[in-house]
Amino acid sequence: MDRVPTGIKGLDELLGGGFPEGRCILIVGSPGSGKTTFALQYLYHGATMGETGLYVTLDEQPDHVKQNLLSFNWDLDAMEKKGKLLLIDASGLRKLRARPEESSSVYSGEFPEGMGFSDLLRTISKVVEGENIRRVALDPITSLMLRYGDVLERRRATTAFFDTLAESGCTSLVTSELKTSLLDRRFQIEEFLSHGVVLLHTLFHEGNIVRAVQIEKMRGIPHDTQIRPYQFGPAGLEIFPRDKVF
Amino acid sequence: MDRVPTGIKGLDELLGGGFPEGRCILIVGSPGSGKTTFALQYLYHGATMGETGLYVTLDEQPDHVKQNLLSFNWDLDAMEKKGKLLLIDASGLRKLRARPEESSSVYSGEFPEGMGFSDLLRTISKVVEGENIRRVALDPITSLMLRYGDVLERRRATTAFFDTLAESGCTSLVTSELKTSLLDRRFQIEEFLSHGVVLLHTLFHEGNIVRAVQIEKMRGIPHDTQIRPYQFGPAGLEIFPRDKVF
Amino acid sequence: MDRVPTGIKGLDELLGGGFPEGRCILIVGSPGSGKTTFALQYLYHGATMGETGLYVTLDEQPDHVKQNLLSFNWDLDAMEKKGKLLLIDASGLRKLRARPEESSSVYSGEFPEGMGFSDLLRTISKVVEGENIRRVALDPITSLMLRYGDVLERRRATTAFFDTLAESGCTSLVTSELKTSLLDRRFQIEEFLSHGVVLLHTLFHEGNIVRAVQIEKMRGIPHDTQIRPYQFGPAGLEIFPRDKVF
Amino acid sequence: MDRVPTGIKGLDELLGGGFPEGRCILIVGSPGSGKTTFALQYLYHGATMGETGLYVTLDEQPDHVKQNLLSFNWDLDAMEKKGKLLLIDASGLRKLRARPEESSSVYSGEFPEGMGFSDLLRTISKVVEGENIRRVALDPITSLMLRYGDVLERRRATTAFFDTLAESGCTSLVTSELKTSLLDRRFQIEEFLSHGVVLLHTLFHEGNIVRAVQIEKMRGIPHDTQIRPYQFGPAGLEIFPRDKVF
Amino acid sequence: MDRVPTGIKGLDELLGGGFPEGRCILIVGSPGSGKTTFALQYLYHGATMGETGLYVTLDEQPDHVKQNLLSFNWDLDAMEKKGKLLLIDASGLRKLRARPEESSSVYSGEFPEGMGFSDLLRTISKVVEGENIRRVALDPITSLMLRYGDVLERRRATTAFFDTLAESGCTSLVTSELKTSLLDRRFQIEEFLSHGVVLLHTLFHEGNIVRAVQIEKMRGIPHDTQIRPYQFGPAGLEIFPRDKVF
Amino acid sequence: MDRVPTGIKGLDELLGGGFPEGRCILIVGSPGSGKTTFALQYLYHGATMGETGLYVTLDEQPDHVKQNLLSFNWDLDAMEKKGKLLLIDASGLRKLRARPEESSSVYSGEFPEGMGFSDLLRTISKVVEGENIRRVALDPITSLMLRYGDVLERRRATTAFFDTLAESGCTSLVTSELKTSLLDRRFQIEEFLSHGVVLLHTLFHEGNIVRAVQIEKMRGIPHDTQIRPYQFGPAGLEIFPRDKVF
Repeated sequence: MDRVPTGIKGLDELLGGGFPEGRCILIVGSPGSGKTTFALQYLYHGATMGETGLYVTLDEQPDHVKQNLLSFNWDLDAMEKKGKLLLIDASGLRKLRARPEESSSVYSGEFPEGMGFSDLLRTISKVVEGENIRRVALDPITSLMLRYGDVLERRRATTAFFDTLAESGCTSLVTSELKTSLLDRRFQIEEFLSHGVVLLHTLFHEGNIVRAVQIEKMRGIPHDTQIRPYQFGPAGLEIFPRDKVF
Repeated sequence: MDRVPTGIKGLDELLGGGFPEGRCILIVGSPGSGKTTFALQYLYHGATMGETGLYVTLDEQPDHVKQNLLSFNWDLDAMEKKGKLLLIDASGLRKLRARPEESSSVYSGEFPEGMGFSDLLRTISKVVEGENIRRVALDPITSLMLRYGDVLERRRATTAFFDTLAESGCTSLVTSELKTSLLDRRFQIEEFLSHGVVLLHTLFHEGNIVRAVQIEKMRGIPHDTQIRPYQFGPAGLEIFPRDKVF
Repeated sequence: MDRVPTGIKGLDELLGGGFPEGRCILIVGSPGSGKTTFALQYLYHGATMGETGLYVTLDEQPDHVKQNLLSFNWDLDAMEKKGKLLLIDASGLRKLRARPEESSSVYSGEFPEGMGFSDLLRTISKVVEGENIRRVALDPITSLMLRYGDVLERRRATTAFFDTLAESGCTSLVTSELKTSLLDRRFQIEEFLSHGVVLLHTLFHEGNIVRAVQIEKMRGIPHDTQIRPYQFGPAGLEIFPRDKVF
Repeated sequence: MDRVPTGIKGLDELLGGGFPEGRCILIVGSPGSGKTTFALQYLYHGATMGETGLYVTLDEQPDHVKQNLLSFNWDLDAMEKKGKLLLIDASGLRKLRARPEESSSVYSGEFPEGMGFSDLLRTISKVVEGENIRRVALDPITSLMLRYGDVLERRRATTAFFDTLAESGCTSLVTSELKTSLLDRRFQIEEFLSHGVVLLHTLFHEGNIVRAVQIEKMRGIPHDTQIRPYQFGPAGLEIFPRDKVF
Repeated sequence: MDRVPTGIKGLDELLGGGFPEGRCILIVGSPGSGKTTFALQYLYHGATMGETGLYVTLDEQPDHVKQNLLSFNWDLDAMEKKGKLLLIDASGLRKLRARPEESSSVYSGEFPEGMGFSDLLRTISKVVEGENIRRVALDPITSLMLRYGDVLERRRATTAFFDTLAESGCTSLVTSELKTSLLDRRFQIEEFLSHGVVLLHTLFHEGNIVRAVQIEKMRGIPHDTQIRPYQFGPAGLEIFPRDKVF
Repeated sequence: MDRVPTGIKGLDELLGGGFPEGRCILIVGSPGSGKTTFALQYLYHGATMGETGLYVTLDEQPDHVKQNLLSFNWDLDAMEKKGKLLLIDASGLRKLRARPEESSSVYSGEFPEGMGFSDLLRTISKVVEGENIRRVALDPITSLMLRYGDVLERRRATTAFFDTLAESGCTSLVTSELKTSLLDRRFQIEEFLSHGVVLLHTLFHEGNIVRAVQIEKMRGIPHDTQIRPYQFGPAGLEIFPRDKVF
C-alpha cells in the first residue's frame, strides 16, 4: 500500500513510511493535546511537497486557526496564496439547529435547499475534485454534538462525514476530542468508522503530566503499537519513536 | 467433537486442535487489535485446504478489506478466483435506516420487499447452501448499532444473525468491537449468544502496550483459559501459547 | 435441613453435605465459567442415584447442550433413555416477543392461548408433578432479557420463574450470566430472589486468569464463605475446597 | 436514652448497651451476609426476656424463614406458641402490581378496598397496639422494588413504612440489600430515613472473604464507629467488638 | 469580614475565628457523620452567648432531635425555655407531594393557599425578622429529594431555600447527605449555591474507619484547607486542627 | 501573538508572558479553589495598568463578591469609582425559567421582549463597545444549569456566551465548576468551546490536600504543561511555576 509522509517528526518511523494512501485517519486527543497542530502540520507538509491540502474547520474561524499556529516555523499564508492550502470555514454550522428531515436525507439523495450539513458534504466533494486535493483535514468532528441531541442522528451525521471523505480518494484526517482523561475509556463511534486511529494522550504519572502518542489502529500496514512520548517543538509536534513514556 | 483448524499460529494448541465444528465463535477486540485479520486468516487457511469460505463485510468494502491485508503473505485474489473465497459486500446496510416493521418480521416469516437486513440473512443462507460453504466470517456485528437506536431491536437483529449462522452448519466467526479498553468490563449480548468467545486485549502495563489473547468461552471442548501474548507476523496473527503476558 | 449431594467434586464439603433440599439455587458466572456444566453435572449425579432430573434450556437446543458436554465422562444419552433425565427445549422462547398482556397475567390466573412464557411455567409444573422430578435446572435465566425491554416486566417474569420452581418442591438450579468481570459489582435481581447463590468467578491476578467459586449465600445451612479455586476435569467441575485462590 | 439489648453477641458492647429504644434501625448487607438471622436473633432475644416480637416477611414465607434458622440453637416454634413471636406473611405483596392511586393515598387518609400495601401498614399498626409488641422486624424492604417501577413511588412507599414503624413506639429493624459489594458506594434512601444503620460487609481482601460489621449511624447514643469482624456461630451472629478486620 | 464563633472545638482555629458573618454554610457528610450535632452545637453555642437561634428540621421531629443529643452536656430545653432556641418542625413537609404549580411560583410572587413549601420559606423569613434571629440551621436539605421527582424542580426548590437564608441576614447552616462514601465524587448543587462548604468525611484506611473534616470552600476568609481528624466528645464534635488524618 | 499579563503571580512565567490577546480562557476548579479570586485578580491587575475591566456575576451579587475579596490587598472600590472596574449583576438570571423560544432565538436574530438571557448578551456587547473594555470575566458559567433542564439547550446557551465573548475582542475569562474531584474526568462542553483552559485542582495525596494549577490548553502560544502547586497569598493566587506538586 502506498504511503503518505505525515510531516510529523518521528511519526513516519512508527508508521513504516507514512499514512496508508487514500484512507481516513482519526486523531483523538484531550483539550490542548495538539490535534489542530497535527492536522495543519500534515497539510503544510503536503503543501511543501506540492500537494494541495484542504482544511475544513468546524470550530474556530480560519483566521484564528492560522493565528494559533504562528509560533511554529510554517508559512501558512504563503501556502494559501500559492493555492496549496485551501480553508473552508464551517464554524458557523454548529450554530444552526439540525433540520428534522436533514440528517435522514444524507443518504436519500434528496437535499433540502439552503446552507446546511448536506451542503458542506457536497462542497467538500466538489472542492476535492475541482482542485485536485490530495490531503484533507476536518477539525473537529466533535462540533457535531452541538447540533444533534439524538445519539442516532449524531451517528448518522458522523457516518456521512466519514463516507464522504473515504469516497474522495484523499488521505484524510479527522480530529476528535477525547471524552475522558484516562487510558481506560469507552471507544467512540469515530474510532470504529475510521481506517486508522492515532491517540494523543495527556497522562498523569507520579505528579507529572506526560504527553504520549499511540497508534491504536492503522488498517493495511504494520505499525508500531507502543505508546511514545511527544512534545511541541518549533516545527510542530515531535514524537520520540524509540522512547518509552515512563 | 470434530475440530476445525484455525490457521492462527498457536491458537490450535490453545484449543486442543481447532474450533469445534459447526459452531459460531465471537472474536472481540479493541480497535486495531486484528479482528479482521483474524477472520480472513481463518478463511484463507480453510481455502488452502480446499474449504470454501464466505466473508460478509458490514463495514468496509471488500476491495478495501483485501488491500488492508496485502502486507501478509496471503494470495486472497487467487483464492477468490478459484472460487474458494466468496465476499458479500453488506457495507451499505449500515446506511439504511431500519424499517419499523423489519426487525420484528425476522422471526415472523414475512419479509418486506426490497434489499434490507432480512435479505442479507436469506442471501447468506442461500450462498452457504448453494456453494457448499464450510467457513463463514461476519465482520463486524458492531455495525448494527448504526442502524438501531433501540436496544431491544438491536438485540433482536443480533440474535437473528447468530441464529442464521448456527443453522447454516458452518463453523462461523463474528467479530465485535470491545466497548472499553479494560479487563473489567460489562459483558455484551454477543458474548452471550455465541458458542465461543475469543478476546483480543490491548493492555497497558507499566508504560507498555501489550497485546494478549484469551479464550473466554468455548463450549464443548477443553481449552486453555490463560491470557497469552500475540503479535502480527508475516502470516497474520501469531500467538505464543505457552508465554505469560507479564 | 436435609441435604442434596451436588455431584460437584469438593462442593459438598463446602456446603456441609450438599444443597438444602427443596430450595432454588442460583449459579452466577461469566461466559465460559461452566454454568451449564455445573447444572448438568448436578442432574447427572442425581440420575446416577436414581433421582429423575429435568433440564430446561432457554438458550441452546438440547442436542447442542449434550454435544457440548461430550468431553466429560458422563453418559447423558443413557440417562435420558432410562427416563432419568428429561430435557425441555425452550430455546425458541427468546425469539418470541413478549405479548403486552402476558407478563401481567402471570399472577392473574388468566393465561392467553398459544405457546408462550406462561405455558412454559405450567409445563414445568406438570412435568415435575407427573414424572416425580426431584432436581430441576433452568439454564440460563439471562435469556429473558432478549424478550423484555422493560425492567419491571423482566423482574416480574424472573420472579414468576423462581416462584414456580420454589413451589415445585424440587431442589432447583438456575444459571445466570455475570454482568461484569469484577468482584465489585451490582447485585442482580436473581440473587435476591434465590435461596442460595454460587458465584463462578474468572479473576485476573498478576497476569494470570484464575477460576474461583464462592458460596455467596445459602439460606438455612452453615457453609464455607471463602473463595476457592476450581478447574474443569474429566468428570466436570472440580473444586479445591481447602485451597486459597492466591 | 433507654437501651434495648440486641441479643447479637458483641453488638451491645459496640452500642454501649443496645439499640436506642423506640427507634428504627436499618440492617444493610450483601446477599448471604445474615440480615434475616440478625432480625430474628433480635426478636428471639426479646422473646426470651418476655417481650413480644413481630416479624413481617416481605420475601420468604414464614415456614421457610423458620426452617432457614434451624441450624441455630433457638426454639422459634416454642416462642411462637407462647405468643411471644408473631409472624405476618406479606411475601405475596410483591406479586401484586401497585395500583396507580395506592401509593399516593398512603398519606391522604383514604385507603382503597382490598388487600394491598396500605392494608399491610394498618395491619402492622393494629397488631403492634393490640398485642403490646415491643420489637418489630421487617425483612426486607428491598422487595418493594419488585412492585414499583417509578423511583419516586418507591421512595414514598419506603417512607410510609418507616413512618409507620417510627409511630408504633417499637424498637424496629428493617433489612435492606446492599446494592454493590464495595465499601465505596452510593447511599440508599433507607439509610437516610432510619435512625440507625448497621452495615454487614462482605469484603475481599488479599484472596480472602472477610465478614465485617460497621455501625454507620446510631442517632442519640455514642457508639463504636470502627469496622469489626463477625461470624456465624451456634447462637447466630457473633461480633468480635475489639478486633480489627485486617 | 466579621466572624461568628462556631462552638465546634478546633473549628474556629481552622477558620481563623469563625464563620464569615451573614453567610450560608453547607455541612456535607455521610450518614452518622454528625451533621445534626454540628448544626445544634452551633446554635447552642450562640444561645449561650445570648444570640437567638432557629432550627428548622426537615427530617426528624424536634423531640427526637433533642433526645438524640441528650448524650452531650448541653441543656437545649433550658435554652428553648429562655427563648434562645426556636424550633420549626417541617418534618411533615416531605410527606406532601409538591403541587405542580408550586415550585415555579417560588419566584413569581404568587403563593398558593394552604401549607406547603412556600409557606415554610415565608415562615422562616418572618420568624427571623420578628425574633431577631442571628443563627439559623436547616437540617437536612436532602429531604427535598423525597418531594421532587424532577431534577430541575429540585434545583429550583434548593435555590429558593438558599436565597431565603442569604436574604435573612443570618449566619446559616444547611446540612446535606453525602451521596457516596468516597473522596472522589460528583459535586452537588448545594455546594455550588452556598458561601462555604464543610465536609465531614468517613474514610476507610487500612482496615480502619477515620472521621475527618475538610473546609472545602469558605468565601471571603482565608482558612485551613487540609483534611483534619475529628471525634465525638462530651460537648459535641471535637476537631484536631493541627493533626493529619493518616 | 500579543500577550495580556494575568496579574496571577507565577502564571505569566508558565504562559510565556500572559494570556493570548483577544481570546476566551476557561478557568475550571472545584468549590473553594479560587475561581472568583482568579477572575477578579485578573481584572484588578488590568485596572492598575489602566485597562477597564468588566465583571459579570451569574451567581453572587457584586457586593458579596467584593466583600469576599476584602482579605486581599486590592482596592476594588477605588477601581470601581475610577471607572476602571465595571460590574454587571446577572445573579438574578438563574431564578428565571428559560422561556421555550428563547434559547433557539439566540441565533435567529429575533429577541423576545423583556429581560432575559439574550438581553444579557446584548448588554455585555454594548458595554464592552461603549466603555472600551479590554478584559471581561464571566463568573460562573455553571449557573446556567439552574435554568436549563435540557442538555442541548444548555449547550446552545453556553455556546452563545462564548461566541459573544469571542466577538467582543476582549481577552475574557469564564469560570466553571469542576464536576468531580478527580484528575480523571469527563471533559465538559466549556473546555471544548474555549481557546484556553486553566484547571485549578484540589488533589488528595497521602492524607494531604494539595492545590495545583494546570494549563490544559492555550491555543496559539507555547506554554508549560506541567501541574504546579499554588496557594492563596495576600495579593491573591500565587503559583510556584517551577515546583512539582508531589
